[in-house]
Amino acid sequence: MKQFTRFPTISAQSKHTRDLKNCADWLAKHLHRIGLEQVKVIPGKHHPIVFAESRREPDGPTLLIYGHYDVQPVDPLQEWRSAPFEPTIRGSDLYARGACDDKGQMFTHVKALESYLRGNGTLPLNVKCLFEGEEEIGSPSLTGFIAHNKGALAADVALMSDTQMLGPNRPAISCSERGALGLELEVSGPAHDLHSGNFGGAVHNPLQALGEITARLHDCSGRIAIPGFYDRVRRLDEKQRDRMAETAPSDAHILREAKTKTGWGERGFTLYERTTIRPALTVNGLTGGYQGPGGKGIIPARAVAKLSFRLVPDQDPRQIDQLFREHIARITPPTVRAKVRTLSAAKPAVVNTHHPAMRAAALAYRKGFGAAPVFLRSGGTIPAVSTFQEVLGIPTVLMGFALRDDRIHAPNEKFHLPNFYNGIATSIFFMAAMSRGRTSKAVFERGIGVAELS
Amino acid sequence: MKQFTRFPTISAQSKHTRDLKNCADWLAKHLHRIGLEQVKVIPGKHHPIVFAESRREPDGPTLLIYGHYDVQPVDPLQEWRSAPFEPTIRGSDLYARGACDDKGQMFTHVKALESYLRGNGTLPLNVKCLFEGEEEIGSPSLTGFIAHNKGALAADVALMSDTQMLGPNRPAISCSERGALGLELEVSGPAHDLHSGNFGGAVHNPLQALGEITARLHDCSGRIAIPGFYDRVRRLDEKQRDRMAETAPSDAHILREAKTKTGWGERGFTLYERTTIRPALTVNGLTGGYQGPGGKGIIPARAVAKLSFRLVPDQDPRQIDQLFREHIARITPPTVRAKVRTLSAAKPAVVNTHHPAMRAAALAYRKGFGAAPVFLRSGGTIPAVSTFQEVLGIPTVLMGFALRDDRIHAPNEKFHLPNFYNGIATSIFFMAAMSRGRTSKAVFERGIGVAELS
Repeated sequence: MKQFTRFPTISAQSKHTRDLKNCADWLAKHLHRIGLEQVKVIPGKHHPIVFAESRREPDGPTLLIYGHYDVQPVDPLQEWRSAPFEPTIRGSDLYARGACDDKGQMFTHVKALESYLRGNGTLPLNVKCLFEGEEEIGSPSLTGFIAHNKGALAADVALMSDTQMLGPNRPAISCSERGALGLELEVSGPAHDLHSGNFGGAVHNPLQALGEITARLHDCSGRIAIPGFYDRVRRLDEKQRDRMAETAPSDAHILREAKTKTGWGERGFTLYERTTIRPALTVNGLTGGYQGPGGKGIIPARAVAKLSFRLVPDQDPRQIDQLFREHIARITPPTVRAKVRTLSAAKPAVVNTHHPAMRAAALAYRKGFGAAPVFLRSGGTIPAVSTFQEVLGIPTVLMGFALRDDRIHAPNEKFHLPNFYNGIATSIFFMAAMSRGRTSKAVFERGIGVAELS
Repeated sequence: MKQFTRFPTISAQSKHTRDLKNCADWLAKHLHRIGLEQVKVIPGKHHPIVFAESRREPDGPTLLIYGHYDVQPVDPLQEWRSAPFEPTIRGSDLYARGACDDKGQMFTHVKALESYLRGNGTLPLNVKCLFEGEEEIGSPSLTGFIAHNKGALAADVALMSDTQMLGPNRPAISCSERGALGLELEVSGPAHDLHSGNFGGAVHNPLQALGEITARLHDCSGRIAIPGFYDRVRRLDEKQRDRMAETAPSDAHILREAKTKTGWGERGFTLYERTTIRPALTVNGLTGGYQGPGGKGIIPARAVAKLSFRLVPDQDPRQIDQLFREHIARITPPTVRAKVRTLSAAKPAVVNTHHPAMRAAALAYRKGFGAAPVFLRSGGTIPAVSTFQEVLGIPTVLMGFALRDDRIHAPNEKFHLPNFYNGIATSIFFMAAMSRGRTSKAVFERGIGVAELS
């Protein structure tokens, strides 16, 4: 695991292309070594997909295990207590970029497979592994790859771990993911930076204009102010919301995790609802003009914002993209020019909680963590979930092992090591349950044995 | 001149502290070599002041020549056609950061002094040179230094060149400078960056909040929306505005220079008025969250804007600072925290156009450029002007040699070389006129000779 997290696999930054390739090669070698077959590293639009399988149970079910070995950028670097690609154990946690999202979590299943193969010589069901390197940039190759390899990827159910538990001993299975739409908005004015003494007051400042534009994306009640934006948002009835509330983290709990005192957002919904069954729009980054120490007397020529929507059923990212562009065209002052670029798009997904695989997962959690899982909605986005549903026609079991304070996407990302070990056990029990109980005590005991952190 | 512009004297960036010291030492040595006396390099708060003098005319007037050898930052670096500190001649222009602001312009006077001393053996009047290295960061040491050295700096009139002409053959003397107030505004929310999937919609985004705050600094008519901000702005009557309009660049002219199609700003004023007799507020830079390629799904923990006011008589930067802080406290949403830091402050200044030194300057321009100058208001800020007026009780002749398209503060800053040579001639004639005509043809002819670009 430590070696796996040492590769700086930041998929958004092309300077790391070689690192992603090296990591994919390393992963493929690892999968081969533990006994999987047909191991392949397949080029993607930007970074490769790693495939491996074991099909020794012609009558057994087939499990498609998905994960991603790419990670988020690491800045602001100065806020990391230890280097992001130098995995470091402090207390019961392993700190590294990707330790949790998603190298650590996907590795629970790799180690479960290794345990089975070492302890049992064979797996209790057929397995196909699909590990991609483009998840953090919106999985641009994945849908095409799956559509072109339907036969090879055919399975009964997909399994992935890229979501959260409620707490260290409170396991959860995610039953919905928000969709996402990543955009870049560039506002430009004068052809080059101008002296703010000579021109200040007479030329519209692109940074100020971008501030004005972003301020007009929400209304004062916290709703997204794009006409038509909420038209296709599915509304839950009171009964559904009450049921959600039974297992939902409280507002206070969410604020504590966010390390902030005050909530914000759409009136009439709890914070949990705002982050799961309601869509959101976030300015992820903004840059323009002088950013060094002290000041600089300029009107910058341009300013750029990175924005992302989180979408819920039945919103369609393509339609929202169009509505956003129309809104920007409408609210951009005539004194500047605005340009929108689409960076990524993924549909929202909902999983049927009554599927037999969900019951198997619940059983496995009880054995692995000693507690029954709750079904939770997730605010995040895993493009693969909707793709598996739409292209392969299979549900995905979202078996989360992350804690809400694991700081995924942020500095000092970590993975809680007890969750790593309990996750491996849960994965083993899940495969056993899926294969109707063909596991053995030996597998489980050895399984924990092979999961050293090397 | 080329050697002078090679020093990367960016005063705002502490990594260049050594470069500023080296440049000051080089400048001191140069002043000594051309024959000035009492040459000193005096430490400032950040960067040294260079002083030199010649007091061989006990009955003659004393001229205080001011300039600054520090420069603005150079980013965005990729937009420079040649490296900012590798002076390069293309056509009739010398390209380098500082070529115009202010190394090139201050050097016209150094070369005029050199011409006099070489051609004549002595100067026609007493001269004190005061060259600072902190102008671009608001001259934090200057007022104190002048106040503590009133006797040593006593003079009849100050001379500086750090302003603009109307065009290559249309010289101008600046008769007013706007004041300035540089500020940094930091908005912070959660203790660290948050995953925008898990928290998007439930936590106020500091970048969005900063956009909302900056959008509320102007009203929709282009006026600054801070209560009390305009209270002390001096209003010109119609006759004064008509007189201004006679020599003012037109709106079309200003837009052409700004390379933009549409003006912006306070209704009821021409673009020239908006940049000279009206105050302005500019967002000079803004940064927060992810700024690399692609996207990153975060709610950033904080966002920072750099802002600067340009102030006009009788606005007081200290009072405006206070009004700004009160306004920010008022408009900051309770869901985030805002912090204001003052970076620099300088008062606006107006120069009496009827002073005899102004007449001498007009005469010198006619000889140096072959055209009479107009009196122009400048939108920029030179803290020294108000300090000379208030502390030494002397007016400043603002003899501009810059062209409006010299891109000061921006990439590809340049100095128009004919203005360099005509500027030297103008400076020579000005000194001669100030000393009641004791110049000689020989000085002028040799003067042009010594001004090679080495």
